[in-house]
Amino acid sequence: MTHDARTEHAPAASDGTAPDMSWFAWGDPAEAKELDPGTRELVSQVLRTRTEDMPPVAEEDVVLSGSRLDERLREVFAGIVGTPQVRTDDTARLLHSGGKSTPDLLARRAGKASPAPDAVLYPADHDQVERVLAVCSAERVAVVPFGGGTSVVGGVSPVDGGFRAVISLDLRRLNRLVSLDATSLTAVLGAGVRTPHAEEMLGEHGLTLGHMPQSYEYATIGGYAATRSSGQASAGYGRFEDMVVGLRVATPRGTLEAGGPPASAAGPDLRRLLVGSEGTLGVITEVAVRVRPRPERVLDEAWSFPDYATGVDALRTLAQSDTRPTMARLSDETETFVNAALGGREAVPGCQAVLGFEGTDSEVESRSAVVRRLLEAAGGTPLGPEPVAHWRETRFHAPYLRDTLLSAGVLAETLETAASWSDLLPLHAAVVGALTGALDDDESGAVVQCHVSHTYATGASLYFTVATGAGEDPAGRWDRAKRASSDAIVANGGTITHHHAVGTDHRPWMTAELGPLGAEVLRAVKAALDPEGVLNPGKLIPEA
Amino acid sequence: MTHDARTEHAPAASDGTAPDMSWFAWGDPAEAKELDPGTRELVSQVLRTRTEDMPPVAEEDVVLSGSRLDERLREVFAGIVGTPQVRTDDTARLLHSGGKSTPDLLARRAGKASPAPDAVLYPADHDQVERVLAVCSAERVAVVPFGGGTSVVGGVSPVDGGFRAVISLDLRRLNRLVSLDATSLTAVLGAGVRTPHAEEMLGEHGLTLGHMPQSYEYATIGGYAATRSSGQASAGYGRFEDMVVGLRVATPRGTLEAGGPPASAAGPDLRRLLVGSEGTLGVITEVAVRVRPRPERVLDEAWSFPDYATGVDALRTLAQSDTRPTMARLSDETETFVNAALGGREAVPGCQAVLGFEGTDSEVESRSAVVRRLLEAAGGTPLGPEPVAHWRETRFHAPYLRDTLLSAGVLAETLETAASWSDLLPLHAAVVGALTGALDDDESGAVVQCHVSHTYATGASLYFTVATGAGEDPAGRWDRAKRASSDAIVANGGTITHHHAVGTDHRPWMTAELGPLGAEVLRAVKAALDPEGVLNPGKLIPEA
Repeated sequence: MTHDARTEHAPAASDGTAPDMSWFAWGDPAEAKELDPGTRELVSQVLRTRTEDMPPVAEEDVVLSGSRLDERLREVFAGIVGTPQVRTDDTARLLHSGGKSTPDLLARRAGKASPAPDAVLYPADHDQVERVLAVCSAERVAVVPFGGGTSVVGGVSPVDGGFRAVISLDLRRLNRLVSLDATSLTAVLGAGVRTPHAEEMLGEHGLTLGHMPQSYEYATIGGYAATRSSGQASAGYGRFEDMVVGLRVATPRGTLEAGGPPASAAGPDLRRLLVGSEGTLGVITEVAVRVRPRPERVLDEAWSFPDYATGVDALRTLAQSDTRPTMARLSDETETFVNAALGGREAVPGCQAVLGFEGTDSEVESRSAVVRRLLEAAGGTPLGPEPVAHWRETRFHAPYLRDTLLSAGVLAETLETAASWSDLLPLHAAVVGALTGALDDDESGAVVQCHVSHTYATGASLYFTVATGAGEDPAGRWDRAKRASSDAIVANGGTITHHHAVGTDHRPWMTAELGPLGAEVLRAVKAALDPEGVLNPGKLIPEA
Repeated sequence: MTHDARTEHAPAASDGTAPDMSWFAWGDPAEAKELDPGTRELVSQVLRTRTEDMPPVAEEDVVLSGSRLDERLREVFAGIVGTPQVRTDDTARLLHSGGKSTPDLLARRAGKASPAPDAVLYPADHDQVERVLAVCSAERVAVVPFGGGTSVVGGVSPVDGGFRAVISLDLRRLNRLVSLDATSLTAVLGAGVRTPHAEEMLGEHGLTLGHMPQSYEYATIGGYAATRSSGQASAGYGRFEDMVVGLRVATPRGTLEAGGPPASAAGPDLRRLLVGSEGTLGVITEVAVRVRPRPERVLDEAWSFPDYATGVDALRTLAQSDTRPTMARLSDETETFVNAALGGREAVPGCQAVLGFEGTDSEVESRSAVVRRLLEAAGGTPLGPEPVAHWRETRFHAPYLRDTLLSAGVLAETLETAASWSDLLPLHAAVVGALTGALDDDESGAVVQCHVSHTYATGASLYFTVATGAGEDPAGRWDRAKRASSDAIVANGGTITHHHAVGTDHRPWMTAELGPLGAEVLRAVKAALDPEGVLNPGKLIPEA
């Protein structure tokens, strides 16, 4: 194999119980570099804003409300998961007090970690999860399933939904390769398995999952299924939902298992009702996933296009052909320029795309040759492998850069959508316009950049990154931008989320997304599986 | 294009309102040839049974119960769809009194067409469908959506579910290409469009759907979506559910629209809840489907394998590679022998596979070369294109042959399943054993043959054809065999149906398929969309 994209960034211990992420930042803050003074000056100039240090408060200055878990309930839970696996200390509660969106971090960095869960439980297996849910339902305690804690949409925020308490159900101990069928290329993985650990366990059998989202280092198998995740190599490996062969789900009403055979016409596909349910219908404890042989070869090639429209058309040609790259991403003009500037390289005019091919030697050879012909015919110019190598090196670093900028008083946040090819460029323009309109003001300018990162025969995703000065009220400033861009997305044929999921943050747009009757269907399913409504209240499913 | 697989068998008029199928047989009985005396003698010998003429009764001798639609309701419906579009005559009712399974045909050929629907309605558009459903729900009238009427599992049987009457809702007038987005390769088609008509309308734009099930000539777009259909070229074009970009569904509670963007993480995918719902949750009126450019070239090649296990392994290798044929089918030893005998050809020992490649010239060239290498390495011997050409010529004829055999006192019925690659051969043996055990008796022997017709990375389908003497009680005889094979399927890791759907006939196995909680989820969704339960009662969803 030319290079190993699968294990180089693996932070997990071999038992999969990787360290927690920082309470105030993505991952391990030691990985985040400070801004050098030159870049800081440049950012100030471009954004027309003063940069100012905005450090987080000290951990001991964070305010947590007291735990509402009474002694009787603590003992009931301890009887199920074991006493050490019921934690009510501030450290555990702070680490489970929310996800990793900019609003999440702004609050915690300012010392506000309320609400925090009243307890964190660490069940060991499916049966313990199911028993915990039965207790929560009977005792009216809200339950927030917690995988890697990487949500950027409020998906793990401990909303109590009016119940007497809320617990965070940390699934890290469900971290086994439960079974492997190498003939059928299917592996059953515990929901709490982090991706590097999954790759390590599968790699021993010469297999890979091939799922590489930006959250790769921390996100879990169960979390991917719960949120309809999509990895950077989705063109070749598919979205996570396409890899899900089967699911095991614990609910307050018992166990639900879905899937198994490779295809079926036995009624609606209940896998697809559980995938994307974000802990509101049940807790996914095991996922049977399709796996693949590890690629013999990875071949990278960057391409340049004179403008975004030409590049988008070229990616569409690939996505609608039978011969595709494994990975294809196209930056718009702004992102192409910013990436070059941040990398200290000269920007090639126009738009840059990074492509990767994975597979057997001969397949990579023949597929890349066909793609090269198609892209040249579509107006592209090859740039060789070097820009892709640079992208691969830094591809998990963006959240760290976001945190570094935040410490320097700059908001750098992302949002994403997908639409048909016909709608894509007008949607791009509308979202850029909405973000600029909301953020380019007396306090600061705003830089909005975008890339296409996932392509399909009928359309593609758009991933926006926006940078702006934090201003006097950073949370309010971002909230305005988020509302404006979400409204623009819904009004221009986009989905409210292509792979970040819904959580609390996208929920206000869900009735528009599903229609009132579609929302009612979700409420009916929830009432059947979670009659008391204790599962992840306040997330995903809009109220009537 | 080398040859046109898409229009050669198109019986539809240009407005899409193709003729009804015969009330007692598949399609147009004029297409069915009589058995020549030699074949008849051979069949008698092989099955150790007397063949006897079993002609259908005359149409005027068919017994229909009287219509229970009263004058007031008839006027209400006429006010919605127009007076001529509410039919209560025996001709219309007989034509909508069931599908095309062997049990269906045995009953009608014997003069029993009860239950028949109390009326047949032909709505013109979505709004009329929705208004009809509102009336049915308020007036407690059961509704059976009717597309091409090709169901072989009782899906269109007019079960009244204890309601005061039952109507058949024939969707043939929803037969338009509603819209086409050639950039996003997406077409919106009316639910009542038959496939040849769809191909004709898309063909004017150089496009194709590529969905070619055996029911191709009569089945409809809405029916495909309602039943999770799979076409013969599913390896290349995907299952129908994979082509569904969006759906418009009328329910007693109003309109539900799902899908649109190419991919989303906005909660569970409600498209997948409606696809496969078989008219029990709503009536699909429009389907947005992914379309493709018509292939420049079709290349066929047959292969021989020394035995079924070797052939199955070879197909698995293809399905797990990135370079696949568009179509691949592998007959077991019995089917290979029978096909050759029926075609008057000498049987090649072992198992025969037919493969097809569709696409651009260069893609077909490169894909077929890769596949050839893989199959040779897997122990296959190429047989050239001729056997595939023969298969293409006769591929829609099997239902006619079934009817011809029935007229000669021989039951020839099919059933199907899918399982993981690991489970496939044991499942094959179990089903062959169950069918032989149920049918090989004093009355007759039984011939059971099988092919793999749909392959996936994690498993494949099995399609069985069984022939046996009709005996004294043909319906009872088939019922025994169906129960034995269905039990064997469920006990050996198979799904109760890979593409025939559930209807009435597979419903007894649905709780085993979904689990009790999964079945409850479907009932909850139904209660939300169809609170009175008037939509296709007695189908798909098991009772509590």
